[in-house]
Amino acid sequence: MLRAELISLIQKKRSFLCIGLDTDLSKIPQHLLTAEDPAFEFNKQIIDATNDLAVAYKPNLAFYECNGVRGWQSLAKTIQYLKKFEVFTIADAKRGDIGNTSTQYAKAFFNPDQSGLDFDAVTVAPYMGEDSVKPFLEFSGKWVVLLALTSNKGAEDFQFFSSEGKKLFEQVLTQSKTWGSEENMMFVVGATKAEMLSTIRKIVPDHFLLVPGVGAQGGSLQEVAKYGLTKDCGLLVNSSRNIIYASKEKDFAEKAREEALKVQQEMEVLLSSLNS
Amino acid sequence: MLRAELISLIQKKRSFLCIGLDTDLSKIPQHLLTAEDPAFEFNKQIIDATNDLAVAYKPNLAFYECNGVRGWQSLAKTIQYLKKFEVFTIADAKRGDIGNTSTQYAKAFFNPDQSGLDFDAVTVAPYMGEDSVKPFLEFSGKWVVLLALTSNKGAEDFQFFSSEGKKLFEQVLTQSKTWGSEENMMFVVGATKAEMLSTIRKIVPDHFLLVPGVGAQGGSLQEVAKYGLTKDCGLLVNSSRNIIYASKEKDFAEKAREEALKVQQEMEVLLSSLNS
Repeated sequence: MLRAELISLIQKKRSFLCIGLDTDLSKIPQHLLTAEDPAFEFNKQIIDATNDLAVAYKPNLAFYECNGVRGWQSLAKTIQYLKKFEVFTIADAKRGDIGNTSTQYAKAFFNPDQSGLDFDAVTVAPYMGEDSVKPFLEFSGKWVVLLALTSNKGAEDFQFFSSEGKKLFEQVLTQSKTWGSEENMMFVVGATKAEMLSTIRKIVPDHFLLVPGVGAQGGSLQEVAKYGLTKDCGLLVNSSRNIIYASKEKDFAEKAREEALKVQQEMEVLLSSLNS
Repeated sequence: MLRAELISLIQKKRSFLCIGLDTDLSKIPQHLLTAEDPAFEFNKQIIDATNDLAVAYKPNLAFYECNGVRGWQSLAKTIQYLKKFEVFTIADAKRGDIGNTSTQYAKAFFNPDQSGLDFDAVTVAPYMGEDSVKPFLEFSGKWVVLLALTSNKGAEDFQFFSSEGKKLFEQVLTQSKTWGSEENMMFVVGATKAEMLSTIRKIVPDHFLLVPGVGAQGGSLQEVAKYGLTKDCGLLVNSSRNIIYASKEKDFAEKAREEALKVQQEMEVLLSSLNS
């Protein structure tokens, strides 16, 4: 999906919500466990109930890989199903390796003829540098979402490592933004560090940011919007557990929709303020 | 596998060779492509031909994931087959995410009842810090192989980012070694940076190091051994392409054995110098 298409989707749906599909068989409603593919059945019902409210979906690879081959089957069916809707899709995989290996990872997520998966974007870890990221940027219309400042406690261990007043995550932003453009790179910035967004916007004023950590991890949508919104929106805010596990009963999809609607309505107000 | 068992395996085989199973369907011998599972058939023949010479095998996940569900089936069969031999197994996956997600990744590689995969170790990227690494350390007898200084050109982008004279990879080593012990953590140090090994040995004198980059990437085994060997060996040196693609013909397994034997013989000399 091109940047212009993503922006137009955000305007049309009046939402910049990304729903994280962290689908855990021990947390989904019990009655689904007898389905042929419980994880896919859960995802399908969540997607059916929320696709007019969310602009993006982000399956978290770990939750599929932990079920081995069966998990990858659920993932493949999920991305095929997502293709029926006007949504941006992100493989939250945190990949990255030497060049020839990253090329294989890129094929895994971007080349459906070979892998069965056809995501719009994949999250990538920056530690191994430019040649670990560039292979993902060679696919037209596809995106790298590079980790910059993450939402977890461990973000403080190395991301704030500082050289001459510049922190590592700032160096990652500064250097990596030259590897691609606003048309094929986004950055992960955790909502739990919303106040850092003004610093980050000085380095990447126009790039889209993928913001996890709103909801279960304690981040605030208002704070994120205050510091992160651009004239094109420039944000995809992810919520996973708060939406998909809003209920563990048969009404889970309905309750997920209710939660997604609350977020979308808040986002609609924030977006309308951009145009006023 | 416990550290003592790994050391005893190294002594018994007089080798610290790790063979990287970067199994690429476009590079394996043509005649295998008609097999039911070409990637597994290739791996099986390589393993059969080399398991007395190698102490470890390291499937590179990207080369399986790029073939989607089919690739994961090949990977699962490969690790099940490896379990028949006395070898240490490493999932070269470069994973790492927030705590609850890393827990799922750990299950993917360490919990065969759930995922079908039962590796001894997994490579992990350090960018997200302690809570992204610790879930992998909670599995008894399992190992984290944390990226410290990688063998690729992009290693220079962030790993040498320097604070008060200390480089990021040194900080990663210093800080992360407190998260586990020599019994459950190793570090990736690229052979292309062998001269840095003496610095690294000052920080982690006893930890095992996984050293990629010998062979196709240009690193020297003699240099790596000179700076990296400890009284317990302390090294696993990986070779992938030089061994597994030594021939593209029907004699590929035999030629792979010849290449592995050359490396093992060089290693035997290096190991015997430890005891003299």
